[in-house]
Amino acid sequence: MIHNFNAGPSILPREVFEEASRAILNFNDTGLSILEIGHRTPVFEGVMSESISLVKELMQLDADKEVMFLHGGASTQFFQVPMNLLDEQGIAAYLDCGIWGTKAIKEAKHFGQVQVVASSRDKNYSYIPKGYQIPEKAAYFHYTTNNTVEGTQMHAIPETSVPLVADMSSDILSRTMDFNRFSLIYAGAQKNIGAAGVNLVIVDKNILGKTSRKLPSMMDYRQHIDNASMLNTPPVFAVYVCLLTLRWLKKIGGVAAIEKFNNEKSALLYNTLDTLPIFKPTVAKEDRSQMNVVFVMDDPEREKEFLQLCKQEGMIGVKGHRSVGGFRVSLYNAMPLSSVQELTKLMSAFAQKY
Amino acid sequence: MIHNFNAGPSILPREVFEEASRAILNFNDTGLSILEIGHRTPVFEGVMSESISLVKELMQLDADKEVMFLHGGASTQFFQVPMNLLDEQGIAAYLDCGIWGTKAIKEAKHFGQVQVVASSRDKNYSYIPKGYQIPEKAAYFHYTTNNTVEGTQMHAIPETSVPLVADMSSDILSRTMDFNRFSLIYAGAQKNIGAAGVNLVIVDKNILGKTSRKLPSMMDYRQHIDNASMLNTPPVFAVYVCLLTLRWLKKIGGVAAIEKFNNEKSALLYNTLDTLPIFKPTVAKEDRSQMNVVFVMDDPEREKEFLQLCKQEGMIGVKGHRSVGGFRVSLYNAMPLSSVQELTKLMSAFAQKY
Repeated sequence: MIHNFNAGPSILPREVFEEASRAILNFNDTGLSILEIGHRTPVFEGVMSESISLVKELMQLDADKEVMFLHGGASTQFFQVPMNLLDEQGIAAYLDCGIWGTKAIKEAKHFGQVQVVASSRDKNYSYIPKGYQIPEKAAYFHYTTNNTVEGTQMHAIPETSVPLVADMSSDILSRTMDFNRFSLIYAGAQKNIGAAGVNLVIVDKNILGKTSRKLPSMMDYRQHIDNASMLNTPPVFAVYVCLLTLRWLKKIGGVAAIEKFNNEKSALLYNTLDTLPIFKPTVAKEDRSQMNVVFVMDDPEREKEFLQLCKQEGMIGVKGHRSVGGFRVSLYNAMPLSSVQELTKLMSAFAQKY
Repeated sequence: MIHNFNAGPSILPREVFEEASRAILNFNDTGLSILEIGHRTPVFEGVMSESISLVKELMQLDADKEVMFLHGGASTQFFQVPMNLLDEQGIAAYLDCGIWGTKAIKEAKHFGQVQVVASSRDKNYSYIPKGYQIPEKAAYFHYTTNNTVEGTQMHAIPETSVPLVADMSSDILSRTMDFNRFSLIYAGAQKNIGAAGVNLVIVDKNILGKTSRKLPSMMDYRQHIDNASMLNTPPVFAVYVCLLTLRWLKKIGGVAAIEKFNNEKSALLYNTLDTLPIFKPTVAKEDRSQMNVVFVMDDPEREKEFLQLCKQEGMIGVKGHRSVGGFRVSLYNAMPLSSVQELTKLMSAFAQKY
């Protein structure tokens, strides 16, 4: 038995794997592989339109929101967002609360001025900054809702009149939120939505077309919207895996149901961490992530020992990112509670030894 | 029995589908799906490095050539190429010989001056222009080696001192060529290389870094080279399908062997077309494509009838592009000779009826 705690690409529901595997041999009883069907066929147009509809339904998006499935990952959006929304003379406000936000800031600087409103770099991004001001004149305010590497998560949506832009790569569709408060949301698919190689982008169409920059067609959100994410050949299979995952999420009760389930998993793990002094969570308690649980031990030798033990027990992907060290356990939507139970049992047994 | 003559996404070898289907349930006996493995694991790094090595080997590339697997399709390269190679004041020379070349020209204009050295638009792109001059001062000369929509193919590499850039999306790895004569080659994977959602880009590293433009990281070929196509999470599964297809190509004898096989298929179809006066190839004889065979009939009603007949016989993807009409039959590497034989039999029987 393998327990896959990978940070991404990461675990997906077993039934998604099974259905995807079948579709590679015979998609929808067409006698064709999903890999060889034309994207401009009714059968694939159905995949794309159902995927878009399911995102709208699951996130309860209002009519102004457009949903796109685009090539690339969140790193592509790091520059595509400012390319579309920021004029050379304009200002974009960014919150610097982790490695990924820092990368987004770096790319935005190619397209206009960037004002970093707050940063938690001083404590290795182990908390979410609070009490900052977002300049009213900013074209948008960008933040990362969940910091995959550092294990922090923003639990409230900032109050501001400035258009909100969020990188939700590692917690989209994991918890209820008023998604309509965002002008733009993007997420690489390879955590809660599907497989690597596609981006989900949700945009309020009213914020588009306001810069003077001329955009290459493939970078222009409006062209993708007008072409229903089929401006060019889309990443067909990656979109299909999204569809299967979205269907699964709807079937088990949608975002509210998965939130409850995710709460249960993360509560179990954090409670275990808080009761076993050998393990030290690295993150401010109020900013803990439900998706990525980060902790260390005092003794590096003991860390090695526990890592080895996890490996023996088939628990993979638990090694922390090199910037933090220790451990990172990712608890995405598809992670079963039983895997978290196995891990916490192992932690308790290990702690008792010392 | 289905005969898949799709123009792309298109047929791939059956064993590629079978292996890919298995890998979604259990990749390389890891007990994990290829969709849930981390991309920074030795097992996936092996997939990427073997894919890159196989491209170098199959195309016999010299040491200056770098191979990348990037997000997106050829449409992404339409702007990424000039973004990397063309200064605002520079000139890029383009050959306008089909719908895709026209799109590439449109995107290049965002980044500098474009000089169209010749065009076959006057005859609906039914031939390849000849006898044109490529300006010596051009940063590069861009052309499409095979025109998927119109069914033309350039059979010789232009003689010029200007760096050659080629969109080989629809004929890469289908015929022997001195690939080292190109400074940059790109190809969307979804014809001869693999599944949709990844681009193969081959570049002579000596032509990079010569413009003053600051590039977003994800657009900068040098960064992708430095990171061995892992600057961000790559489209893991799409790269894996490329690997399986490249292994298959090597196993059956490489590019020289597939060229012989492709010659056989296209000769059979063109010979049939030339002997049955009811069918009219639309393309100048010397510029005929071995990958996409385009033809019409005099009578639109008869076209409908033949299309219906193809459908009955399980021959799909034969309808011509709306800009040309009639029929387009794609004969990519994985297309079996038997499918072409079935089609030509059907054509002969249909012709005899009239």
